Amino acid sequence: MRIRVVQVGLGPIGVTVARQLEEREGFELVGGVDLDPAMAGRELAEVCGFAEGRGRRVWADLGDALAELAPDAVTLCTGSSLARVAPTVETCLLAGVSVVSTTEELAFPWLAQPELAQRIDQAGRRGGAAVVATGINPGFAMDALPLALTAVCRRVDAVRVYRLQDAGRRRLPFQLKVGAGLTPEEFADQVASGGVRHVGLRESVEMIASAMGWELDEVTDVIQPRIADQPQRSDELEIPAGRVCGVLQVGTGRQGDRVRVRLGFDAWVGAPGSYDEVQIEGEPSLRSRVEGGFPGDLATASLVVNAVPRVLAAPPGLLTVKDMPPAHCWPG
Amino acid sequence: MRIRVVQVGLGPIGVTVARQLEEREGFELVGGVDLDPAMAGRELAEVCGFAEGRGRRVWADLGDALAELAPDAVTLCTGSSLARVAPTVETCLLAGVSVVSTTEELAFPWLAQPELAQRIDQAGRRGGAAVVATGINPGFAMDALPLALTAVCRRVDAVRVYRLQDAGRRRLPFQLKVGAGLTPEEFADQVASGGVRHVGLRESVEMIASAMGWELDEVTDVIQPRIADQPQRSDELEIPAGRVCGVLQVGTGRQGDRVRVRLGFDAWVGAPGSYDEVQIEGEPSLRSRVEGGFPGDLATASLVVNAVPRVLAAPPGLLTVKDMPPAHCWPG
Repeated sequence: MRIRVVQVGLGPIGVTVARQLEEREGFELVGGVDLDPAMAGRELAEVCGFAEGRGRRVWADLGDALAELAPDAVTLCTGSSLARVAPTVETCLLAGVSVVSTTEELAFPWLAQPELAQRIDQAGRRGGAAVVATGINPGFAMDALPLALTAVCRRVDAVRVYRLQDAGRRRLPFQLKVGAGLTPEEFADQVASGGVRHVGLRESVEMIASAMGWELDEVTDVIQPRIADQPQRSDELEIPAGRVCGVLQVGTGRQGDRVRVRLGFDAWVGAPGSYDEVQIEGEPSLRSRVEGGFPGDLATASLVVNAVPRVLAAPPGLLTVKDMPPAHCWPG
Repeated sequence: MRIRVVQVGLGPIGVTVARQLEEREGFELVGGVDLDPAMAGRELAEVCGFAEGRGRRVWADLGDALAELAPDAVTLCTGSSLARVAPTVETCLLAGVSVVSTTEELAFPWLAQPELAQRIDQAGRRGGAAVVATGINPGFAMDALPLALTAVCRRVDAVRVYRLQDAGRRRLPFQLKVGAGLTPEEFADQVASGGVRHVGLRESVEMIASAMGWELDEVTDVIQPRIADQPQRSDELEIPAGRVCGVLQVGTGRQGDRVRVRLGFDAWVGAPGSYDEVQIEGEPSLRSRVEGGFPGDLATASLVVNAVPRVLAAPPGLLTVKDMPPAHCWPG
């Protein structure tokens, strides 16, 4: 009765997903895969910090792992880039194994990377397996949830989402990822090299617009530093005034001169709290708020695991969260 | 390209749904059906208050209307009782026409009325058509929305929903339906006769429990009057102190001695505002709030109309909102 899952990718998010699969009823973690040669052959339990080993190991070759373990599904947490994960996804699908992935660019790739999207869709249809990408954002807070809220509307003019996060309360890698502690020049370099970019705003903008039937003329994704106007500190960092304490990233979808979708990701050390807010402008207009915000890493791991039963019940091919029954915690 | 719909039931909610079908892109209202002999043969436009007649009329016989108009879907707003609407639903399904209904007892009938549920499911499979019941509650605020929020959780211990409504800002029939202005004795009589009962709490409790995998030992639905402790007034009513100003109805699902689901419907003249709040207890716990609340009648009509494309794309049979892709406003 338990769903047999192989975890592919054993970085921080992958390990968090693996832990849920290990500890939750309804799932059985049967093995792990990671390309890092330092991981190959190690005990999965040791890599993930489980008490019980049960002889499971980390495989270096995905095809071997699928052939030997015959899982029902793969949870895939190896990176944001669709081009880079596409071969892995195709290998799973062609082997008839459905996939839930955290790959942000896979959340709604139909407009940004249509050829890759189609190739993956076809692999799913050929293999009789389905794939969906999810996570807190993209996958939920900035697309699936606001779309679900529009169900009470007879007309929608615009969708706005704002996530404020006190980065000082998140783990250090998150603080560094939003640029905390950098000089403005270093921040600009990091933006140019992609180091501080939060991937997925474009995908959420385009998923919402697609559902609403809005043909967008322009999608922008603008990254600005949040500069500390006074010294800020977290448990791990001291940030002098004038340094970067975080990021404000805004994704916007325009139809003509109308802003149809605006998604604000605002994460900095010293932010006055955390919350997630959705604002629908239309008939009726409404505003929904989660005080404290969704806890990013835990929420992403839960969304991935909770999507596994949904993807197994779905028709084959490439799915997006807007077109499948919503995941819910299971079993409660 | 427009979805052709027949509206069955032309009471207040039915007319609101018909207006959306008439005014929204993507839909074409092709006719109406109502059993009331005073309506039969009248112009649909006149009954609904449309400017344009276009020759559509109100049919007394559903079978005749379906045969003549060949709609893609029926929107059905005739009442809360599954037993009473079942023949109508079956007629549509066996004619191959999918249905979205506001019938509260149809929202999740699998535990309360399993035989009727199965009969309707089979009619859908035989006719190749699908049916789902939705509306603000049941259908969204107290079941689909809280379930969607549990997707960020790795464990759920309890789901609580609370809807506070300032009944004085709603239409008079709503104020009367919640008992405003009655004496406590009259209120008790109305509760006994079913006059002030909000139908659907049991269905939402059982839908949530079913999704979470909780086998409930007890489901209760308790109705209490809200007594005015000082005089209250709406535009339509004056309520002296000591009279009933509204209702607090609480649906509870228990597993052993644990409260797993608690749904509070609290509507009274003089309430200090309106809001909809969902509270998930688990890992993580979270609280989501819509200030001002969902506007009931508009939201219900929108949810029904927005579910039409979903039900047309669904596999045949009896569906519940938890198992189909969530409706969203379409087109935006």
